[in-house]
Amino acid sequence: MKNYVYTFGNGHAEGDGSMKNLLGGKGANLAEMARIGLPVPAGFTITTECCNDYFSSNGRFPDSLEAQVKSAMAETEALMGIRFGDPDNPLLVSCRSGARSSMPGMMETVLNVGLTEQTIPGLIQKTKNPRFVYDAYRRLIMMFADVVMEKAENIEAEEGKDIRCRLERIMEDMKVSKGYQGDTDFSADDLKELTRLFKTRIYEVLGTEFPDDPQQQLWQGIGAVFKSWNGKRAVSFRRIENIPDDWGTAVTVQSMVFGNMGDTSATGVAFTRNPGTGENKFYGEWLPNAQGEDVVAGIRTPNPLNNDTKTEQNRHLPSLEEAMPKVYGELVQVRSILEHQNRDMQDLEFTIQENNLYMLQTRDGRRTGMAALNMAMDMLEEGLIDKRTAVLRVSPAQLDEMLHPLIDPKAEKKIKPVAVGLPAGPGGASGQIVFTSVDAVQWARDGKSVILVREETNPEDVEGMRAATAILTARGGMTSHAALVARGWGKCCVVGAGTLQIDVKEKKLAINGNTYTEGDIFTVNGTRGAVYEGALPMISASENPRLKEYMEIVDRFRKINIRTNAETADDARMAKDFGAEGIGLFRTEHMFYGKGAEEPLFLLRKLILNKSIKERQATIEELFPHIKEDIRQTLEIMDEFPVTIRLLDPPLHEFVPRSKENQVKLAEALCVDRQTIVTRSNKLRESNPMMGHRGVRIGITYPEISEMQIRAIFEAAAELISAGRHPLPEIMVPVTCDVRELDVIKIIVERTYESVIKRFGIEKIDYKYGTMIEIPRAALLSHEMARTAEFFSYGTNDLTQMTFGFSRDDIGGFMEAYIDKNILAKDPFQTIDMKGVGRLIKDSVERGRQVRPDLKIGICGEHGGDPESVQFCCLSGFNYVSCSPYRIPIARLAAAQAAVMAEKEAQSTEIRFV
Amino acid sequence: MKNYVYTFGNGHAEGDGSMKNLLGGKGANLAEMARIGLPVPAGFTITTECCNDYFSSNGRFPDSLEAQVKSAMAETEALMGIRFGDPDNPLLVSCRSGARSSMPGMMETVLNVGLTEQTIPGLIQKTKNPRFVYDAYRRLIMMFADVVMEKAENIEAEEGKDIRCRLERIMEDMKVSKGYQGDTDFSADDLKELTRLFKTRIYEVLGTEFPDDPQQQLWQGIGAVFKSWNGKRAVSFRRIENIPDDWGTAVTVQSMVFGNMGDTSATGVAFTRNPGTGENKFYGEWLPNAQGEDVVAGIRTPNPLNNDTKTEQNRHLPSLEEAMPKVYGELVQVRSILEHQNRDMQDLEFTIQENNLYMLQTRDGRRTGMAALNMAMDMLEEGLIDKRTAVLRVSPAQLDEMLHPLIDPKAEKKIKPVAVGLPAGPGGASGQIVFTSVDAVQWARDGKSVILVREETNPEDVEGMRAATAILTARGGMTSHAALVARGWGKCCVVGAGTLQIDVKEKKLAINGNTYTEGDIFTVNGTRGAVYEGALPMISASENPRLKEYMEIVDRFRKINIRTNAETADDARMAKDFGAEGIGLFRTEHMFYGKGAEEPLFLLRKLILNKSIKERQATIEELFPHIKEDIRQTLEIMDEFPVTIRLLDPPLHEFVPRSKENQVKLAEALCVDRQTIVTRSNKLRESNPMMGHRGVRIGITYPEISEMQIRAIFEAAAELISAGRHPLPEIMVPVTCDVRELDVIKIIVERTYESVIKRFGIEKIDYKYGTMIEIPRAALLSHEMARTAEFFSYGTNDLTQMTFGFSRDDIGGFMEAYIDKNILAKDPFQTIDMKGVGRLIKDSVERGRQVRPDLKIGICGEHGGDPESVQFCCLSGFNYVSCSPYRIPIARLAAAQAAVMAEKEAQSTEIRFV
Repeated sequence: MKNYVYTFGNGHAEGDGSMKNLLGGKGANLAEMARIGLPVPAGFTITTECCNDYFSSNGRFPDSLEAQVKSAMAETEALMGIRFGDPDNPLLVSCRSGARSSMPGMMETVLNVGLTEQTIPGLIQKTKNPRFVYDAYRRLIMMFADVVMEKAENIEAEEGKDIRCRLERIMEDMKVSKGYQGDTDFSADDLKELTRLFKTRIYEVLGTEFPDDPQQQLWQGIGAVFKSWNGKRAVSFRRIENIPDDWGTAVTVQSMVFGNMGDTSATGVAFTRNPGTGENKFYGEWLPNAQGEDVVAGIRTPNPLNNDTKTEQNRHLPSLEEAMPKVYGELVQVRSILEHQNRDMQDLEFTIQENNLYMLQTRDGRRTGMAALNMAMDMLEEGLIDKRTAVLRVSPAQLDEMLHPLIDPKAEKKIKPVAVGLPAGPGGASGQIVFTSVDAVQWARDGKSVILVREETNPEDVEGMRAATAILTARGGMTSHAALVARGWGKCCVVGAGTLQIDVKEKKLAINGNTYTEGDIFTVNGTRGAVYEGALPMISASENPRLKEYMEIVDRFRKINIRTNAETADDARMAKDFGAEGIGLFRTEHMFYGKGAEEPLFLLRKLILNKSIKERQATIEELFPHIKEDIRQTLEIMDEFPVTIRLLDPPLHEFVPRSKENQVKLAEALCVDRQTIVTRSNKLRESNPMMGHRGVRIGITYPEISEMQIRAIFEAAAELISAGRHPLPEIMVPVTCDVRELDVIKIIVERTYESVIKRFGIEKIDYKYGTMIEIPRAALLSHEMARTAEFFSYGTNDLTQMTFGFSRDDIGGFMEAYIDKNILAKDPFQTIDMKGVGRLIKDSVERGRQVRPDLKIGICGEHGGDPESVQFCCLSGFNYVSCSPYRIPIARLAAAQAAVMAEKEAQSTEIRFV
Repeated sequence: MKNYVYTFGNGHAEGDGSMKNLLGGKGANLAEMARIGLPVPAGFTITTECCNDYFSSNGRFPDSLEAQVKSAMAETEALMGIRFGDPDNPLLVSCRSGARSSMPGMMETVLNVGLTEQTIPGLIQKTKNPRFVYDAYRRLIMMFADVVMEKAENIEAEEGKDIRCRLERIMEDMKVSKGYQGDTDFSADDLKELTRLFKTRIYEVLGTEFPDDPQQQLWQGIGAVFKSWNGKRAVSFRRIENIPDDWGTAVTVQSMVFGNMGDTSATGVAFTRNPGTGENKFYGEWLPNAQGEDVVAGIRTPNPLNNDTKTEQNRHLPSLEEAMPKVYGELVQVRSILEHQNRDMQDLEFTIQENNLYMLQTRDGRRTGMAALNMAMDMLEEGLIDKRTAVLRVSPAQLDEMLHPLIDPKAEKKIKPVAVGLPAGPGGASGQIVFTSVDAVQWARDGKSVILVREETNPEDVEGMRAATAILTARGGMTSHAALVARGWGKCCVVGAGTLQIDVKEKKLAINGNTYTEGDIFTVNGTRGAVYEGALPMISASENPRLKEYMEIVDRFRKINIRTNAETADDARMAKDFGAEGIGLFRTEHMFYGKGAEEPLFLLRKLILNKSIKERQATIEELFPHIKEDIRQTLEIMDEFPVTIRLLDPPLHEFVPRSKENQVKLAEALCVDRQTIVTRSNKLRESNPMMGHRGVRIGITYPEISEMQIRAIFEAAAELISAGRHPLPEIMVPVTCDVRELDVIKIIVERTYESVIKRFGIEKIDYKYGTMIEIPRAALLSHEMARTAEFFSYGTNDLTQMTFGFSRDDIGGFMEAYIDKNILAKDPFQTIDMKGVGRLIKDSVERGRQVRPDLKIGICGEHGGDPESVQFCCLSGFNYVSCSPYRIPIARLAAAQAAVMAEKEAQSTEIRFV
């Protein structure tokens, strides 16, 4: 019989902190806290395995579960000294979700389970607080109707007509009719009346009765939490965060403690260090006489935890340190124990019930990139973690965030913010304001930069938040939903900007009497919490000495080289600054695009439309100096570093003139009429240019073009050698499918090499000759390709296109559906498809190395800057990855992390891959 | 030390008939003939291995060769009783090429080697015939200058300025100045003078002296034959015939015998059976007082071999039977010996020197398809061969030829031919006349059907002959170059139509006073030797009972099924007649093309442009009956046979209306304006439609379309079952790249199946669910695909496109260069690329079967009708191949041959592949 249930409480636990996969993060950490003697309300966790079994038997609980829960509940009752469903002294419990990794707010929770008409009198008797009891009952009914009776049953309601809205409207009506200001004005009788009205409405709308029975509440609650794993929000979050569907959620059933039992009760959230900056100060928020959800939901602006961390915005509010100094002292001790136990910054949830502290949760806290960096370096210095751990502590996405632009401080100084709030997500961003998640997604899809402005955000908003450049909310604190999510994604975010008056219906925003409409441009400073009208100038992340130090540690663990894809002298210079150790892709055709390209482009056009070899040769002589100079500059900057120069790749028709003016100009130069140009151009058109006359196919049919490029490379190198430099060109042939293509071009390479060497009177040029592997056949025949190629550079963009038969330009029509329907876990153009394309690459590397053991292997597709793909390359034996200059630090970090993780894996088991 | 030289002569030989790979066909057969005591002039053969060694050491003879040749020459001298280079009684030799398989006229030969100013007096002394000797010397010099001194040295001359033309012009000039009619008018002195003039001219033009030394002539001759293996013609022939470059040629050095030593001498060519019809009659041609080349070159119209085979055209000429009855008798004996020895029709070359018969060559004779069939059946009946051999005796190309059209005999009876000649290649063909090989290639490339009209053809013409629909020559016999080549390719051909007066320069043709110009249309009957003006109606190859009988034998050996690609009731019916055992590809979209498609196409367009699912559902209901009826018809015809129905494949934009009229019509039906239609259509356009939104990708994004098609299939089947039939539909999902796609569609299949079964009240429908494998990733992940797919059908067209990254529509720009430069041996769209695509398929089949051992495997690309590809499929474990109806007999034969060859291989060794 499977053990589905693990109990905890009173200094003991069946589970422990290492069992996150089975008990979820929350369950494992509660067990651990109980085990080390922290004050945890007793309870038990139902495993993720049970969740999976529940789904695989179409929503039936395993047979053995009932007995196990019964027994665990008995243990909990014994520890708490009260009984679940006991009319005289009832135990209430919560049913909470908890997955392997944190999915804040994505799944459901039901509180106050076990409160019924039968148990109410006993609880009133015990608490002497009928208002509290009926408020708890009111909350239970609302939550239960929403989570268990509606959402878990997949009942879809129109907007504003879901059960929660309907019940809220009843409360609102009563408030109005009685002239109350807020929820706290409700009397016990009012709340009792509300619960009666709620039950009637629930039956009217949903057609079933609210179950006024503790066991029914418990089991339906457990089921609803399981079901919320497959709720729309959770699934969409998993897609974004790449969490597998089969992890499942655990359910923790835990004794309720109440932060809303009067002024000696409170609830709060704390971080053992500042999650925004990394500063080693205890940091948090609390609310007196409140339940936990009140803090997180951002409905009331919470108080600061201690005096040390008060800000301008909350200086006037009482800290826990001031209000409950004894309990605060206990909490400080808990902070220290948990941080040393977990050797990482912890995110804590606590409740104070009548001056008693209870810990409800601890977990590794989310943090900004800057905080991650500072904490890693601090903890390293404190001796809390070692270097390897430090390397793993900053995720590539967090590093990316640190490299994000900031508002130019000079410009910012000159302008006053229109609003201020809490600095919840780092960096600066400008964009057009929108007021709904749907609009944010839509506008972003149209290529616009948008700032999502919301009263407060909730899990329904995640897709819009993802799409937005920045997030701005009027309410909520640093632990509100918006802040948590933005921080996790490293997204610029300001929360709790209280002067914002938002009218979603009219799509208008008023700040201090000024009105703005949808589409107006704002700039947000998420590092300082400021909001500005209009677009402010940005600067790139300043040189951070701590980051430099960190990257030096990182580089010590990295085992592969990082190169860059660069094709101008400027790119090459910048890439070197970012740490590039060579160029993995220099596209020779770039010089025909962009500014300054007019002359060479005109010559190339002439070349393409020349009819005879003789004419082409003449044009080639005109074009040659441009090509050589272009290559020479980059070789010079990258002196001593390898530069992989790719021969002409795009199909020739990409270059033919489309405008009448250019056609006429070209016709004149070629002494033909314009119609001839048009005809010739049309002849070059292709049905599927991606698979057309391009790459080496041009080299084969127009060997004079290959020869010119090869000559340019060798002459550029020879000139530099003559000037005492040491260029390392690598000639790369694109779009090959057979080694014979390489053989044919190699003849030109060798002939040209000999002639250049002789003409320049130099001894040699250190060059390599190799190919891109971007056609499936080339990958399949790597053992042949490697006979001639000294290096392979995987062109994973095209390789992915051909292997999937997906034209990257045309996937718009179906890629979304493929991800939504879980046909593909990820867009294979973002992260290498390990199963298909990855397998092809791994086999190809092996087969190539069998023929040529020192075959140099690299990647120059855009995947070279994707952390997961970099990790794949590290484990597949690559010598280097090449990515755009801005992605270099990320690739460096990803490569180092791959090496550290591989070391760890190697210690425990053999490395398996895909 | 390698043995490079094998001697033969006088009833003995070091080699034998089985050593074709080493000695070439000619050398092996000469050895065999000598061994069994036939009269073969003594000599020796230098091996193909020596040829390869010669090339791999850049044209140097192996060191040991000289001694081996010396010793072999000594043996030859001993057998012939005369010595090479002996001034008193010189031995003359020929140096002839000989590859593993026959390459008629593609390589070089030098005759009369050893004749010099020194040896001439001795030979005159011996022959008492100074004219013969100087004629032989004249021939040697011309041939040597052309073959050895010019071609082998890679000297390129402009047309008409090559050394042979220049020397011929000297002869011509002398003929004119002396008033001679023909070559036979030259006196010994004339010929002597000619040799002097030749030598001077050679030195002037080529800058080197003609080597008047026997040893120099010999070694240069051997080298020139080797070099001719890599001559332009030979290489181009190898490309067409798929002969590997590394086979190499042998060189046979053989004592000269002379057919031109007066009227008791002769030369001839014979076939042991009629190569045009297969009739079991000795058949051939001869010329008195001539050298071998005179017969083959078609310069003189030759005499018939015997009385029995005289035709209307040559009835007046003397047969060898009449002219030299004794020698003819000997030849008849040789015929019988060689045919029994080789168990196949032989092509013989013989020379009669002063009433002595010498055999110069025997080889398996080329034949027409009809002849191949008749010979195979005759020899089977005669007990000469067994059934397995008979199956191998007709090549798929020969079978193809028999399936070629014939001129409608009724139409032919009513019209008189404008010219008659010899029936050299089978079938009938109409086309436009052209006069050069270059034009034939060019016109054919432009899609025209052409008849190549030549005075006579020579190896330079092969490409034009290949491109032409038919070949017509004014001169030459049944063994002329044109006849040999045409027969080999099964191409319609008439030779020796003497009334043709051809003016190549003016591109004009005169026949009996009528003038025709390039582009005029003729019809050629290659089976009867007749030529007609204009285009005559054609009929398909009549039902040949012998062919039926042969195909029945063939089918007994075949191990896989042959299905057809058919999508109309007519196609299906015809395919069944051709022997189809099911349909491998029924493309559901065909019904939207062609006539009768207006209504369904309009509905499909409406469907594509409908915006909401609701609208689409309504259109689907309108479209549904068309789709169902279409499928029902084909299932009915193919009752009891499986029919693989492919769900919608092409991208939707292929269907949107382009014409204004259709756009307006559609706009009206949809109640939108035309601009909306245009905009929507433009949105559907794709950059690379081959890799766009098509196949299952449409099924995933528009599940209602999949559902309609699936419902149509099941309802059609259910209706037939209700009517007592037994349909076997197979539902095939196209363009898949992941098993999840199959899973998603399978849900629709199962749901629809259940509902149809229930509605029709039938027990079950025997159906299968499977996929095309046409995307590389699907092939790579076959072990996953096979979890859901019950069958795989390889779509080798698309799989080849994606694996190579070749868009079939766009290869025009480079495929020719790829074949020319030997980058690819063949166009991979004609024959499966065994190395790349084939390997992918083989692995995929294995991985699929590991998961599902009874996985049904087929092919539905056009390769299904290509004999080599069919063979590949047989050896890779396919259950069936599917091809167009006309290719079915060819696929049946190819499959049977593969099975027979596999059996043979299995007996000798394990089957290796690729």
